[in-house]
Amino acid sequence: MHGIRPVIEALRSGRRRVREVLVSVESREVEAAAETAGVKLVSVSKGRIEEAAGEAAHQGVAARVEPYPYSGLDELLAVPEPLLLVLDGVEDPRNLGAILRAADGAGATGVVIPKDRAAGVTPVAVKASAGASEHVRVARETNLRRALDRMKKAGVWVYASEPGGSQPADVDLAGPAALVLGSEGSGIRRLVREGCDGAIAIPMLGSVSSLNVSVAAAVLLYEARRQRDQRG
Amino acid sequence: MHGIRPVIEALRSGRRRVREVLVSVESREVEAAAETAGVKLVSVSKGRIEEAAGEAAHQGVAARVEPYPYSGLDELLAVPEPLLLVLDGVEDPRNLGAILRAADGAGATGVVIPKDRAAGVTPVAVKASAGASEHVRVARETNLRRALDRMKKAGVWVYASEPGGSQPADVDLAGPAALVLGSEGSGIRRLVREGCDGAIAIPMLGSVSSLNVSVAAAVLLYEARRQRDQRG
Repeated sequence: MHGIRPVIEALRSGRRRVREVLVSVESREVEAAAETAGVKLVSVSKGRIEEAAGEAAHQGVAARVEPYPYSGLDELLAVPEPLLLVLDGVEDPRNLGAILRAADGAGATGVVIPKDRAAGVTPVAVKASAGASEHVRVARETNLRRALDRMKKAGVWVYASEPGGSQPADVDLAGPAALVLGSEGSGIRRLVREGCDGAIAIPMLGSVSSLNVSVAAAVLLYEARRQRDQRG
Repeated sequence: MHGIRPVIEALRSGRRRVREVLVSVESREVEAAAETAGVKLVSVSKGRIEEAAGEAAHQGVAARVEPYPYSGLDELLAVPEPLLLVLDGVEDPRNLGAILRAADGAGATGVVIPKDRAAGVTPVAVKASAGASEHVRVARETNLRRALDRMKKAGVWVYASEPGGSQPADVDLAGPAALVLGSEGSGIRRLVREGCDGAIAIPMLGSVSSLNVSVAAAVLLYEARRQRDQRG
């Protein structure tokens, strides 16, 4: 993984082992986080960081880490009144990262993604999440439809985000709720859609017919947060 | 400009002259939009599209267009109960584009950006906006602080988006309002901040301290939209 925030958040969260931090710049915040976590910090050339990162946007910081620690769906459903996000095939790791950052900000319980044909929590996604990936829980499910069925059995109301749905403020998102968003190109698949209890639609008042998926996720999550605070 | 949606939206909005549409792929929607607008469509090689676009993400469609038609601030203030977004130095054209797309979706009156040290409505921003740039009004001001003063004189309440501010739902955004967001790196400049009537903060409940600027803009604009709808 690479980037200042990602490496600091990985060190802070302690959810996966950080074997070694590589730096080609001086960053007191990175040094302090590595020291607190008891992780070795090695000064290397910019070229070696770039090699470890595999891309240019590394900010002179990289880390050798264990694979991303995905959560189980059960873990997410064990939380009282969960607020879940289900991504049916988001393909761009930067979109996934932005979504994880918004989910962390809005205090969502977790994010559920499919195992196939979708972006996983890769270093690029971690970078785009500003390290939020290291805190937010992500479950990876082989069969998304079956995951929705399990959520419903656990008392969670499942809403598809799609045109023609109810206005977000008219849907009760203060109780246990899951918001299902489709892929950038083709939306929610039929079988997944059929697993939802209802539909919700962010009003589109201008000329363009949809929002970026990360923006849509954030708007819906923060509407749920507002309802929860208001009820609170 | 390049990309399917951008070219279609430019043809539809008619806000700037489209001289010629270049295509290296077949797109019935592009053809129909060009015909309706009475604009010449030319089939060319992929190489020529790439040359015109200057980048790879062109989708086989480009157009020769007039410069972006910026609006005057007066125009934005002439609308009753305007909902304005003020960007104090957003530098990434993709962030600007995503913001324009959200502003269009939320029915904002317009977006105000500074003339210097900030992304303008370049082809990359247009592409990232999915063509929303061709519909949403953007004013470019030399002195952002003076622009805020003019807004306040016109009865607009100006809120800085920054940590420590009031919760969005506790701020009256149903009346004439402007939301000021800072740059990706350094936030709102002091002089601009001093021109604001108050501060608003999206609650950050996780570990990461801020949202992407386009996500923050969308969350605030849609909260304003909800308040306006609720007031009826």
